[in-house]
Amino acid sequence: MHKANYRSLERVLEKAHKGDIAYIFTYLSRDERVKTFEILMKIDIKKASAVLSDLEEDIKLDLLRTLPIKESTRIILTLSTNEIAQIIDKVPKELQKAVLEKLEEEEKEKIEEIISSGADTIKSIIKEDYIAINEEETVLECLAQVKKISSQMEIIYIYSVDNKNRLTGVISLAEILSYPEDTQLKDIINKDVIALKEDTSKEEAVEIFKRYNFPILPVVDEERRLIGVIHIYDILDVISEKTTEEFFKMAGAREEELFYTNQIFKVAKLRLPWMLFAIVGEFITAFIISNFSSTIEEFLPIIFFLPMVAAISGNISSQAAIITARGILTGRIMENYKDFILTLIKEIKVAFVLGLIISLIVGIVAFIWIINHKLGIVVALALFSNILIASVVGGLIPYIMYKLNKDPTIATGPIILTLNDIIGITIYLSVATIFVHYLKV
Amino acid sequence: MHKANYRSLERVLEKAHKGDIAYIFTYLSRDERVKTFEILMKIDIKKASAVLSDLEEDIKLDLLRTLPIKESTRIILTLSTNEIAQIIDKVPKELQKAVLEKLEEEEKEKIEEIISSGADTIKSIIKEDYIAINEEETVLECLAQVKKISSQMEIIYIYSVDNKNRLTGVISLAEILSYPEDTQLKDIINKDVIALKEDTSKEEAVEIFKRYNFPILPVVDEERRLIGVIHIYDILDVISEKTTEEFFKMAGAREEELFYTNQIFKVAKLRLPWMLFAIVGEFITAFIISNFSSTIEEFLPIIFFLPMVAAISGNISSQAAIITARGILTGRIMENYKDFILTLIKEIKVAFVLGLIISLIVGIVAFIWIINHKLGIVVALALFSNILIASVVGGLIPYIMYKLNKDPTIATGPIILTLNDIIGITIYLSVATIFVHYLKV
Repeated sequence: MHKANYRSLERVLEKAHKGDIAYIFTYLSRDERVKTFEILMKIDIKKASAVLSDLEEDIKLDLLRTLPIKESTRIILTLSTNEIAQIIDKVPKELQKAVLEKLEEEEKEKIEEIISSGADTIKSIIKEDYIAINEEETVLECLAQVKKISSQMEIIYIYSVDNKNRLTGVISLAEILSYPEDTQLKDIINKDVIALKEDTSKEEAVEIFKRYNFPILPVVDEERRLIGVIHIYDILDVISEKTTEEFFKMAGAREEELFYTNQIFKVAKLRLPWMLFAIVGEFITAFIISNFSSTIEEFLPIIFFLPMVAAISGNISSQAAIITARGILTGRIMENYKDFILTLIKEIKVAFVLGLIISLIVGIVAFIWIINHKLGIVVALALFSNILIASVVGGLIPYIMYKLNKDPTIATGPIILTLNDIIGITIYLSVATIFVHYLKV
Repeated sequence: MHKANYRSLERVLEKAHKGDIAYIFTYLSRDERVKTFEILMKIDIKKASAVLSDLEEDIKLDLLRTLPIKESTRIILTLSTNEIAQIIDKVPKELQKAVLEKLEEEEKEKIEEIISSGADTIKSIIKEDYIAINEEETVLECLAQVKKISSQMEIIYIYSVDNKNRLTGVISLAEILSYPEDTQLKDIINKDVIALKEDTSKEEAVEIFKRYNFPILPVVDEERRLIGVIHIYDILDVISEKTTEEFFKMAGAREEELFYTNQIFKVAKLRLPWMLFAIVGEFITAFIISNFSSTIEEFLPIIFFLPMVAAISGNISSQAAIITARGILTGRIMENYKDFILTLIKEIKVAFVLGLIISLIVGIVAFIWIINHKLGIVVALALFSNILIASVVGGLIPYIMYKLNKDPTIATGPIILTLNDIIGITIYLSVATIFVHYLKV
């Protein structure tokens, strides 16, 4: 890099908001990220640390893997214990070793505990920027505390605790101002404080934040001792991770593969199970087709429409499955299965209308195109019944998965499509067999 | 309902947090929702209004449609102008009329303006619970204001404005406490205030909230006059709406259909365009197959594997498409297309490994099963080349869509699957044709 460029990059990094730098990072190539980050580390290690925290997990890990190991170790050590726990399992072995060597025994234990409790709890996003004050203290003491630390952290609420550090209430800074300075905290706090448990899953935390509209929620241990807070903006990151995960599931892929961008075999291994499921399913399809060989031999054009049947009913089925799966996940479709039945009936009605239109179009085109006009009628009939059944299958499978305590989203991918091929092609060829003699006449 | 049940329901509704009531609503059937809501309206209309605001949009609309029109009108009129604007277009005509009749001229105009500016801007979620103070004023004045209104709204920041009500800065309540009471606001405010424009789209707002980690952001008009604030928890709701939308897009469905649960023809109409796309595509597939009729007649078992070819390459393709589309949307894959090429190469490598495994398995099974063993080799060869090409197609299409300024998620649904059927089946039958004489020997 030219010296002048280097200087101006330095100046930009100095001036820019950490959120902006993290945002710009997503637009840089891997090399550019590494170079820029090294400069940032040189001019402001604290800002570099904040930027690293802000990056999406896959970019963060990629950066840590690409940086020289000495730099990686140095920047990881600036992160909070919780954040280190979140990534330490996913970095190369030698970097892991280098970091662990530098940590104190106590911190190492805490990291192990977080890892063993599963990356899916909120533990890894607990922050320690909060004020907790004994409930016997007064408003004056609260304000003194706020003044002392307001330059280092953003304070919105003050939490009150008893002598054993157990959470007893919460009051917003704005509210506290309206009381005389000698008021005791315990007389003014809101005792219905909503708190998360340290082993709450990230998903549950998202739901709780959505439900109560607080920007920050306290976290307590099993004895209700206050141990930290969760910020809603960390929940935003959780949501976008979860969303990506859901999308991947729909295609029978797994989100973890983003962390292994350079490990082709690991990625292939993650995807293989659903592939094998599809292969087995499609062998069943192949076997079914082979049993209809004589029908096909009698009138070959039947098979021209095999992919049409599979594709159209697959499409109908996916739509029904997504509407059901999303309905379950967003709470629109309920356990009491009244809503589920209503959704299913709606899907069947929609399929009926679409089935009529589609089978009419396809039937007419087939009628005109294929020399034997009657094939048009067979195709239309088969398509119509297929579409109806596909809507039922698509609606049912996610609901069954859910009732079996499985993730309904998984059902929207390979399961539905494979099942549909089997059912759809069987119906189509059966209808064709019934009419084949008639077709030949 | 028994009188005793009614009483206890009343008591529960009185005591419960509005977030909890809204949450419980998602678990009730439609009838139960209507009954419960009517009781809630009777005992506490303000709480009923807050619960209504908190409901997911489709449940909210469903409730408003199912309530007696008098009750619906009454509760809608308790909502803020912004919220009314958000729903008025989606309720039945007679309810719409009843509400508009009761509104003042000024409010009607504002609603029309919001509607015409598009439901996709942040206008509909702008709130007015903020404190703006002239920058010439002092800390003392700020604290007086906070004390006056802290019981009605949660105050985290104080915004400073000039004489023309233009936003000049921001300071957190915690920070302001550390300054002497006679300090002028303009000497202590943070002037690099991040503000949203009133015509910012909801998507952009989500990105900005993710980037800067503030629980609240101010909204300004084109002359930088402060007109309101956006809360991060309203952004949470936007995100969950957008997520559902994205999922629907993947299946060629549209989220709007949730608002028309009882209007089957409207829903069918929303889904039809992609269906027609698939139909045209599959007619092309049918035409291609018809051109290979002589090959198929020579050796019928070839067609047993048509669905297998379509399904496996469809699966590979969807995965590549989702990884690319999500990568583009989350910023992992960049405009500079270096990252895109890297992602594509990775997908091809993964496809290579999976292709080897899958074609080996399928080839061996076909080899053993079908009397003519050589078919196994043909199927394996065709599947392998199909899988490679599917990974390229899947990766390319979302990127091309993005470059054409179209939504890359749309590409992950029917487009990819249809294209894949056409390409996959052509390759498979071409390979089969090359080897068919060899097969017959």
